[in-house]
Amino acid sequence: MTSFDDFNLIEEKELIPGFFGRMKHTGKMTIVKWKVKKGAVLPPHSHPHVQVTMVLEGEFQMTVNDESKNLHPGEIVSIDGEVVHAGKALTDCLLIDVFHPEREEYK
Amino acid sequence: MTSFDDFNLIEEKELIPGFFGRMKHTGKMTIVKWKVKKGAVLPPHSHPHVQVTMVLEGEFQMTVNDESKNLHPGEIVSIDGEVVHAGKALTDCLLIDVFHPEREEYK
Repeated sequence: MTSFDDFNLIEEKELIPGFFGRMKHTGKMTIVKWKVKKGAVLPPHSHPHVQVTMVLEGEFQMTVNDESKNLHPGEIVSIDGEVVHAGKALTDCLLIDVFHPEREEYK
Repeated sequence: MTSFDDFNLIEEKELIPGFFGRMKHTGKMTIVKWKVKKGAVLPPHSHPHVQVTMVLEGEFQMTVNDESKNLHPGEIVSIDGEVVHAGKALTDCLLIDVFHPEREEYK
């Protein structure tokens, strides 16, 4: 849908311990702005949605298909659907995730 | 596709006067990180792709369906396909655009 919104006004939810997300569902995509606490761990998982993760602040270790990279601001990872990935916040982080299609379970 | 990348290493292209974009095409989406010069104008246009624009830095005026809003960091706009939109950088800005499907003409 066509709409203006403000992440600062969207309620924050701790969906995974240490991962505080604000979600916007746009019809075709779900956008999540995450504040992540240093040391928080994203366990290995997969989902049918394609995902793009961008690091805005901090350092986040992402592991995709057994390849691990420490991502810094400006770095980005694209993850196809059903591909197993995991992560760890090496510092406090600010991340953006984009999913297609929408993550219905996040609503 | 599944891949790591770094916007800092992607070549910058001035696609519209004052709009300097770095593009990542992921198969299902095109992500663009824009540096925009104060005063740069995005003329009214539309495209079949859905679009999400996020402001990371600065102040960007976006007009969608004759509704104008001045967007600040954290603000976001979702624009459906074929919806006419236009914009203007009120200050130097840093923006993220996400398109689905990919913007083939940006390749």
